[in-house]
Amino acid sequence: MSTLEIGKELVALCQQGKGLEAVDRLYDEKIVSIEAQGSDELPARMEGIEAIRGKNSWWYDNHEVHASSAAGPFCGQQEDQFGALFEMDVTFKPSGERSKLTEIALYTVSGGKIVQEEFWYLMDS
Amino acid sequence: MSTLEIGKELVALCQQGKGLEAVDRLYDEKIVSIEAQGSDELPARMEGIEAIRGKNSWWYDNHEVHASSAAGPFCGQQEDQFGALFEMDVTFKPSGERSKLTEIALYTVSGGKIVQEEFWYLMDS
Repeated sequence: MSTLEIGKELVALCQQGKGLEAVDRLYDEKIVSIEAQGSDELPARMEGIEAIRGKNSWWYDNHEVHASSAAGPFCGQQEDQFGALFEMDVTFKPSGERSKLTEIALYTVSGGKIVQEEFWYLMDS
Repeated sequence: MSTLEIGKELVALCQQGKGLEAVDRLYDEKIVSIEAQGSDELPARMEGIEAIRGKNSWWYDNHEVHASSAAGPFCGQQEDQFGALFEMDVTFKPSGERSKLTEIALYTVSGGKIVQEEFWYLMDS
């Protein structure tokens, strides 16, 4: 699949709430994931498909999703990259805190698989 | 100014339609600008503050802006980068064609100035 085709499939799966399926179908075994912020539990930089599956499972287990949307793909000058935009209205179950999150993601593709994902979070003004 | 402060000012100026003022106030003399697509008239990669002023002036001269919004800054793992999201409803004056454009931008900061801007365009589905 081309970068554009992978981008379209990723966004379509995320629009359906099938983020875990997107990981299984589109991510490389050696995926590198770079969040804007990390913690002892979940470091900002994680590598390998099992770690990324674990991160995604943890996220879905710990958040109640009231609404979410995904837009993209966004295409630029680099043929091996595409972007996406995510908006979520979620409650973090352990604290009960509800928040709206907006993120930009940039994906890098190699050999027909996503090898890196990197996230930027919208700051509160 | 910090990367976050520069990001806030850039987004605030763009929200007010003051893109040219943002270039004057926040961009480095050696700014590199990377659009998703180029043409003979406007290559995808341009360098130097005069070229970028010219590109921005050309854009404002050739588009009627019906509505526009800017969101951000988006912050990630790299302390010298921030993102922004732009949505525009514009008519390209030479052709009369009206279209809605959505772009992600990623900015790199060095020495208190923006030294690179890179854009990704939302593809039509």
